[in-house]
Amino acid sequence: MKQGEQTRNNIIKSANKLFYQQGFHKTAFSDIVRDVGLSKGNITYHFKSKEDILTAVFERRMEKTRNTLALWDKEHPEATARLYCFIDNLLEGKSELARYGCPNGTLASELGKSNALTRELSQPLFELIRHWLASQFLTLGSSTEQANNLAMELFTRGQGICVLSQVYNDEKLFEHEINQLKKLVALHHISKGLEMNKSPLVRPDIG
Amino acid sequence: MKQGEQTRNNIIKSANKLFYQQGFHKTAFSDIVRDVGLSKGNITYHFKSKEDILTAVFERRMEKTRNTLALWDKEHPEATARLYCFIDNLLEGKSELARYGCPNGTLASELGKSNALTRELSQPLFELIRHWLASQFLTLGSSTEQANNLAMELFTRGQGICVLSQVYNDEKLFEHEINQLKKLVALHHISKGLEMNKSPLVRPDIG
Repeated sequence: MKQGEQTRNNIIKSANKLFYQQGFHKTAFSDIVRDVGLSKGNITYHFKSKEDILTAVFERRMEKTRNTLALWDKEHPEATARLYCFIDNLLEGKSELARYGCPNGTLASELGKSNALTRELSQPLFELIRHWLASQFLTLGSSTEQANNLAMELFTRGQGICVLSQVYNDEKLFEHEINQLKKLVALHHISKGLEMNKSPLVRPDIG
Repeated sequence: MKQGEQTRNNIIKSANKLFYQQGFHKTAFSDIVRDVGLSKGNITYHFKSKEDILTAVFERRMEKTRNTLALWDKEHPEATARLYCFIDNLLEGKSELARYGCPNGTLASELGKSNALTRELSQPLFELIRHWLASQFLTLGSSTEQANNLAMELFTRGQGICVLSQVYNDEKLFEHEINQLKKLVALHHISKGLEMNKSPLVRPDIG
């Protein structure tokens, strides 16, 4: 990696961490400069403003999320296993999530109050995750409407669990509630399995 | 109301609105001064800092929430009807909630990143609502564990719906998802009704 590219990466990494741990508005451009440990001129060579860095942070998050979802798709041929990956990933981050909330949810909440441009930065990231969740339920045999509803339920509950756990700064609460999401996926898996077994072949009394 | 008290009220009201529409960190003390329309000296006579106003904003929210919940308790002897009040109240605020998110959730998310003192300001307010929700499910015949779980599910889903609706700034999405919460309450009402009818009196074949 070239040095300029390395510097650019370090800026994005610092800003991503500070926006997460402090919030976007509480993080000053000078905080980022200090955290990266380079001169202000070195930073402004790559990014003119905090808003420019924000856009790059979102691009980075999109890329990382896309890669993670693609990895789960590749490693697990079964959609239920992929949904468990999504949930286990939340469980793995429990101490950070209970302390600072969801990185995407809290940033979206904060930016969502601002002007339309800033507000809409979060949408592609949420859309990527929502669409991935829905496609897993589609694979499991749900109708498009059902799949969208289930994806939205899983997504909203995950976000809400992050909000409540952060209020109480309580990992145990986080863990307990996230495990309810596992039950939701397991129940759906069982009910879809039962539905598929209801074919005329195993129920010769019908038809 | 005395003039000093009126001024104090106006400051809290302005700050409450600005913290909601812009966020706490984005709102400067001078924004509040400008919004109230009085001199800075007039404001600092009542509140020394933005943090002092924040504490008063939380006190006001606690008081308003306590009064609203007490009113629903008084007006509706049936717990399911009270839970519908809670949900209908969200539906009534849909355009603001889809634009700025939940006033309590977004402020908690933002302050939750800060030091412990600021972080814990939200807890009593969340605890008040969570406890009220659980007490409704208890009244409906749930065990303490069930009631706490249902309260937490309703609360987290409500919060998550606010996050997602704000991301998309979409009232229709908000309405659709909140109506799922009505189904949750209705299903619980039906299942509790069925359980109660399962007494030995109506099932003489048992015992």
